[in-house]
Amino acid sequence: MPRRSDPVERLIGQLARLPGVGEKSAARLAFHLMRDLRHSKANGLASLSEDLARALLEAGSEVQLCRICANLTTEDICSICDDPQRDDSVLCVVETVADLRALERAGMMRGRFHVLHGALAPLEGIGPDDLHIDSLVERVQREGTKEVVLAMNANVDGDTTALYLSRVLAPHVGKVSRLASGIPLGGELEYLDGGTLARAFADRRGFGE
Amino acid sequence: MPRRSDPVERLIGQLARLPGVGEKSAARLAFHLMRDLRHSKANGLASLSEDLARALLEAGSEVQLCRICANLTTEDICSICDDPQRDDSVLCVVETVADLRALERAGMMRGRFHVLHGALAPLEGIGPDDLHIDSLVERVQREGTKEVVLAMNANVDGDTTALYLSRVLAPHVGKVSRLASGIPLGGELEYLDGGTLARAFADRRGFGE
Repeated sequence: MPRRSDPVERLIGQLARLPGVGEKSAARLAFHLMRDLRHSKANGLASLSEDLARALLEAGSEVQLCRICANLTTEDICSICDDPQRDDSVLCVVETVADLRALERAGMMRGRFHVLHGALAPLEGIGPDDLHIDSLVERVQREGTKEVVLAMNANVDGDTTALYLSRVLAPHVGKVSRLASGIPLGGELEYLDGGTLARAFADRRGFGE
Repeated sequence: MPRRSDPVERLIGQLARLPGVGEKSAARLAFHLMRDLRHSKANGLASLSEDLARALLEAGSEVQLCRICANLTTEDICSICDDPQRDDSVLCVVETVADLRALERAGMMRGRFHVLHGALAPLEGIGPDDLHIDSLVERVQREGTKEVVLAMNANVDGDTTALYLSRVLAPHVGKVSRLASGIPLGGELEYLDGGTLARAFADRRGFGE
């Protein structure tokens, strides 16, 4: 059977480009979509493949980066930057929009956000100019931010990025903090890696502190 | 954050409708697509989301069922039914197009195919009229098929379907066979389920047979 020569093969090929989707999963998804399509057509309903195609095209044409914080938005300025209820004195810096949304779901952060769109990764050639860092520095100066919370991932690239930002931001902002590391809620010591345990031990706090 | 109100949330919602894709995976895929989109736009390349949307729409508009065997095709008749090199005397019946392609990849079947588009599942209300069975019976009579190979899945629905088809087809065709059950290549007895071992034992063959 020649590959990529017919629409189903092309669809499988495109689905297989999605992260975490292999050739077999892509084929399963494509056949599911084809089955759904027949079923939808027979019943006069909108098919999943049409709905998905429309969502892809709309997201592609309507979504842009917020001019202030680089969050995804359909407007010039995102809903968080546009919210007058937010605390201007605290700015939380995240690597990705996904991280921003995770923190929003957790619901404890009432300040503003800033999205870097990545982390420093010297070995992969990702330096400060590839991230939204200039706009961050300019922003904390302009807005007179009191505290910047660095909410990087707890891995090498995240640590590198946080260290770099802490130095770059120090002259312009009163306090630069980062998220606590340690044992996650529900974590059982027996199953945690040594790195997490070592960091939790080193960062131990007095009882009642 | 209100759900489904903006294009990214709608895209996450549509991706989460795919089988095996949960809300978290859908968000990860959506953010990957948005990242790829920015990168593609900046470099003047076609984005994955546009390519995928096009593939979805093309597959939806161009693909239909083969008039003879119900395989997916862009023509009236699929490439297998249209191939004069194929052996007309053997017809292999499969549940799905995915099964057909798996057998084609294995490359030992040089006859024709017939796709049922499902299996009998009385508990789910799927009966003979919901599958491409009438066209199968009519076809073996018209084509004078010598052998029908029932290549159903080795589960309850597959067994039910094979048993039903063997009875329906018996008056019209010389030989009705089904795929062998047993230990898969590379299978280690220690890790195989009891059902497979029982069937392999019951179907044991003389050495050199």
